[in-house]
Amino acid sequence: MSDIIAHLEQVIAARRPGADGPGADASYVASLFAKGRDKMAQKLGEEAVEAVIAASRDESDAMIGEAADLVFHLLVLLNDMDLSWADIMQELERREGVSGLDEKASRTAR
Amino acid sequence: MSDIIAHLEQVIAARRPGADGPGADASYVASLFAKGRDKMAQKLGEEAVEAVIAASRDESDAMIGEAADLVFHLLVLLNDMDLSWADIMQELERREGVSGLDEKASRTAR
Amino acid sequence: MSDIIAHLEQVIAARRPGADGPGADASYVASLFAKGRDKMAQKLGEEAVEAVIAASRDESDAMIGEAADLVFHLLVLLNDMDLSWADIMQELERREGVSGLDEKASRTAR
Amino acid sequence: MSDIIAHLEQVIAARRPGADGPGADASYVASLFAKGRDKMAQKLGEEAVEAVIAASRDESDAMIGEAADLVFHLLVLLNDMDLSWADIMQELERREGVSGLDEKASRTAR
Repeated sequence: MSDIIAHLEQVIAARRPGADGPGADASYVASLFAKGRDKMAQKLGEEAVEAVIAASRDESDAMIGEAADLVFHLLVLLNDMDLSWADIMQELERREGVSGLDEKASRTAR
Repeated sequence: MSDIIAHLEQVIAARRPGADGPGADASYVASLFAKGRDKMAQKLGEEAVEAVIAASRDESDAMIGEAADLVFHLLVLLNDMDLSWADIMQELERREGVSGLDEKASRTAR
Repeated sequence: MSDIIAHLEQVIAARRPGADGPGADASYVASLFAKGRDKMAQKLGEEAVEAVIAASRDESDAMIGEAADLVFHLLVLLNDMDLSWADIMQELERREGVSGLDEKASRTAR
Repeated sequence: MSDIIAHLEQVIAARRPGADGPGADASYVASLFAKGRDKMAQKLGEEAVEAVIAASRDESDAMIGEAADLVFHLLVLLNDMDLSWADIMQELERREGVSGLDEKASRTAR
């Protein structure tokens, strides 16, 4: 898995209400958890709309920013649903008929 | 980077018009490329809306499916804009002040 | 109220499951009612995304079509929630501090 | 046409940059015009997402509010594209094969 994805999952988990650790209450992520599921889902939708606009206008820099926002808010939403990025990757692997790609790669890397 | 992401990027690139290789014209991806940027952007928006609904209703299985659809269509759109998943990961790393996580990890892995 | 809005509300109501009248099962509206609330909500989101694209690209003809789709699917969704266009107009009147505009107009028209 | 729609179209037109009249610069509408088309389109998408959530959760009060927001931002976007609510109503009439409903009604009312 991408290390930045794993890093963000840890950052998000640390800011979830009840989590220990520095800055757990002050962050943007904490504010999303405080506002609840619907607000998180709304943010995902909003970021997707902004990505749609960036794509329609063929603005690469904006697209990178909006896609990053989209992935970030997707990670927040997944965490709130007790899901993880790995669940999504497994589903994509299952569809492609290539399940275990990551595991295979991790074996290869040894 | 996740291997399934890398795999999908290759699959998508192979179905882009002008690409060589088996099945390049017949697939769903090829049909998206044929319909053009706006259709791709529309699909991203649609999948985001479906993810919003799954999240609002707290349906985990649906969320996994919709999130997978969302990531897949994001990859198609990025390819059409000559962007890659790595661009998005780098932007997330930059924001977190942890640039080079992947490179560092690849060095560690050796 | 716009007569076409009133007309569409009648058409939609006539196609709701259990409604009497010609074509009550065969129509697109009936298929939306058969698929349920989430599908209707999804359609609203999709049409909004298409309107966003038309607006971003400054395509007037497309915008008229997408806005018409958006209003139509909003009417379907309102009906399914036992709400009406008049409820939305009243809310807009309330916000503008001009409640009773329609009633006033109907008095004036006499 | 609904009088509140006509009223809002006037309010929006009065706040368009270059428009005369009180409060032309201070309002929320003026701020949307200042931010431009993409911001308006983004707002439409956001309000649609919020309506989708309200519908999925079957929250009537929220739905009325979000639908009102959606119609309002649609009117702003139409104005910015030099389109009007009447254009959308005519398109809906055309599709239903009932063109001239409003005109007919206005004749009837005399």
